[in-house]
Amino acid sequence: MPKIMNQFNLPVDELPRRWYNLAADLPEPLPPPKDPEEGPSRLEMLPTFLLKTVLGQENSTERWIDIPQGIRELFIQAGRPRPLMRALRLEEALKLPDTIRLYYKREDLSPTGSHKVNTALAQTYYAAEEGFSEVTTETGAGQWGSALSYAASLNGLKCRVFWVRAAYRWKPGRRTLMQLYGSDVFASPSKETEFGKKLLKENPQHVGSLGIAISEGIEDALNRDGSIYCLGSVLSHVLLHQTVIGLETIEQFKLAEDTPTLLIGCFGGGSNFGGFSLPFIGEVLQGKRECKFLAAQSEASPNLVEGKYIYDHGDHAGLTPLLKMYSLGHDVEMPEIWAEGIRYSAAAPIMSAVRKLGMLDAIAYPVDEVHVYSQARRFIQAEGFIPAPESSYGVAASIDKALEYKKNGEDAVIAFNVSGHGFLDMQAYAKPLKLE
Amino acid sequence: MPKIMNQFNLPVDELPRRWYNLAADLPEPLPPPKDPEEGPSRLEMLPTFLLKTVLGQENSTERWIDIPQGIRELFIQAGRPRPLMRALRLEEALKLPDTIRLYYKREDLSPTGSHKVNTALAQTYYAAEEGFSEVTTETGAGQWGSALSYAASLNGLKCRVFWVRAAYRWKPGRRTLMQLYGSDVFASPSKETEFGKKLLKENPQHVGSLGIAISEGIEDALNRDGSIYCLGSVLSHVLLHQTVIGLETIEQFKLAEDTPTLLIGCFGGGSNFGGFSLPFIGEVLQGKRECKFLAAQSEASPNLVEGKYIYDHGDHAGLTPLLKMYSLGHDVEMPEIWAEGIRYSAAAPIMSAVRKLGMLDAIAYPVDEVHVYSQARRFIQAEGFIPAPESSYGVAASIDKALEYKKNGEDAVIAFNVSGHGFLDMQAYAKPLKLE
Repeated sequence: MPKIMNQFNLPVDELPRRWYNLAADLPEPLPPPKDPEEGPSRLEMLPTFLLKTVLGQENSTERWIDIPQGIRELFIQAGRPRPLMRALRLEEALKLPDTIRLYYKREDLSPTGSHKVNTALAQTYYAAEEGFSEVTTETGAGQWGSALSYAASLNGLKCRVFWVRAAYRWKPGRRTLMQLYGSDVFASPSKETEFGKKLLKENPQHVGSLGIAISEGIEDALNRDGSIYCLGSVLSHVLLHQTVIGLETIEQFKLAEDTPTLLIGCFGGGSNFGGFSLPFIGEVLQGKRECKFLAAQSEASPNLVEGKYIYDHGDHAGLTPLLKMYSLGHDVEMPEIWAEGIRYSAAAPIMSAVRKLGMLDAIAYPVDEVHVYSQARRFIQAEGFIPAPESSYGVAASIDKALEYKKNGEDAVIAFNVSGHGFLDMQAYAKPLKLE
Repeated sequence: MPKIMNQFNLPVDELPRRWYNLAADLPEPLPPPKDPEEGPSRLEMLPTFLLKTVLGQENSTERWIDIPQGIRELFIQAGRPRPLMRALRLEEALKLPDTIRLYYKREDLSPTGSHKVNTALAQTYYAAEEGFSEVTTETGAGQWGSALSYAASLNGLKCRVFWVRAAYRWKPGRRTLMQLYGSDVFASPSKETEFGKKLLKENPQHVGSLGIAISEGIEDALNRDGSIYCLGSVLSHVLLHQTVIGLETIEQFKLAEDTPTLLIGCFGGGSNFGGFSLPFIGEVLQGKRECKFLAAQSEASPNLVEGKYIYDHGDHAGLTPLLKMYSLGHDVEMPEIWAEGIRYSAAAPIMSAVRKLGMLDAIAYPVDEVHVYSQARRFIQAEGFIPAPESSYGVAASIDKALEYKKNGEDAVIAFNVSGHGFLDMQAYAKPLKLE
């Protein structure tokens, strides 16, 4: 045994049996999605390309939603529960006093390298249960496409991924990963859809965009027998599935005999930080604990920091219903960063509601990313694990806050979520840190 | 809980307290290393560049060697104990009867992606304890250089890696990984050593070789104050440190209430399969269990299949003492394969002794690697994890044997070691499987 225990593992049979739904504990109901004033009804379109079960979860106000036994078995197969670590070595490297303690959750142990597998496994399980034989999706950075490919394979489904051509080209490792799971991966715009064909006719070298890939994915799912579309972030059912992260973490803090005073995570659309923090936020709302929450963003997409709380589309093309969100505008131009997975225009409706309540702080780091990856390197050299570029934002914010508490002579127990690993995205570190 | 439990985790406080040394149980002593008839004495040189502690372990005949508390803490930090999984989904995909069961050990959960961290952590811990401030090594495929970089970082040591230029060039991700841990990584031949400078003067575009990189690493360690050289395979102390894998597995099979009848692993120099199998081999020699052992090799380097049991150097340049090994000749030409980590001329002396006793079977797969990666893909699509290219050899052999047992109507419990993950080497799958 170490002198101070630093690895807290839940026994497999203590894997959570229910997801937590914050909608039950919000002081006011979540503002419902609505249709734009012009164009076809997006609300009426939803049931044609979303699973019945997830649509039910999307609108549920039940506090607890049972995790089906089949999904629990898939979570166990994927290596859940995942460890909570006390960052003893990082604390030492930062010369923190005993009164400032750091913990992190290891979602980087996911089979495809990110927390996205949690909802991917749930959605593909439901898809198989509802009689579908195929799932379709879009992907930008590639994490969601990888996770859905994995989950489809384990549930015996085919999977078709429309991948923004710009990223498709320079991430051959991730493409191979999806193909190994048996997925068909298409550079978008593609010749698989009418929309894609039209765009390619206009410009055969079209580099694509996330909005185009979403359109292709939805068209593809609508036109193919037995096919259904899946979404990897923003919507409430996605965040619901992710709450397994925070629910495990609550039990693990009991094992550690400690209590976090501040939860931190990177934040783009909000599925990772939502999954980590929602069960804690619920307990704060129920008066069961005190805790603060901090979202670490990029100045490329500071939706919580600079966005307005408005009704907006979730996608660039405006295909989704209007959702009440902190948004920079669904068609805003965002500078490129290496942490592509947190480059998103709006914050998930449920996290936006938490922000509106004044319970969620946010900071945004400069687009050069040098500070973020330099702080992540301190974590890497002390703890040994390689966070995903996106996760590095949460790591950096945790180090920054710890040093701030130290300077101010304040006590704190900070917990952060290492939402994924960086093995497939090492360039993100090499370029900003000028590693030759 | 799953209907049949498939994840077997040892509690952290049951991490092994001692390594197992097979030398104590061999019917005859291991043939000692010796000097070649010509040239300087390699045996006298050994203590100048190997750690005192590991040199003692190299020659020990004690059955159990205590794992220092500091190294146990490092193992826990690195995520040990690692799970043993029952491959229920793969069994189903292969339509195996209940009487043929498959298990695998998840060394792919290692922080740098391979089992190499086990000995890297031990060696760097001893280096710090013996007062060194720096470790030096060579690397071919890059797994060892990554593991030593990680371990040096956690032990507060500097690390210098001489990396065969051919691989250095096309594996930028792995180079970034080593640099993130703070290592200095040099394409070999380099300007850091007299030997390297001499070669570069002759040919500025020299692509290097493992033999050259070893020579550079040793020269570098000898010439720098506080620097010591570390080796990642073949020697007995390396395999000793790796026995933590097999010792955990023995306890996990008790949790699974099952007993393996056949252990399988990929095999180049033998450190992964040695670490996995030696504790089981010891119990067979002590009459405590029955079990067979199978090494999965490449026809590029079938040292156990076609090698002769002779005294030979461990390195291409002939700098090491002569070791009694199954060897293809230390200067043999070996065709290139993607699974570079198992492309090695000889089998570790201790595993060679087991082979000589008739206890270790071996097969070699064709250099096109198509069958190996096709079988690995069946594992990937059923179980969801991405084995390292090297590990795929053990996966493929396990599937092949399981299907053979099924055909013959025989019972079997097969356990294999997934020695690493493949995220940093996805090209290995893409090319042979013709994924676009």
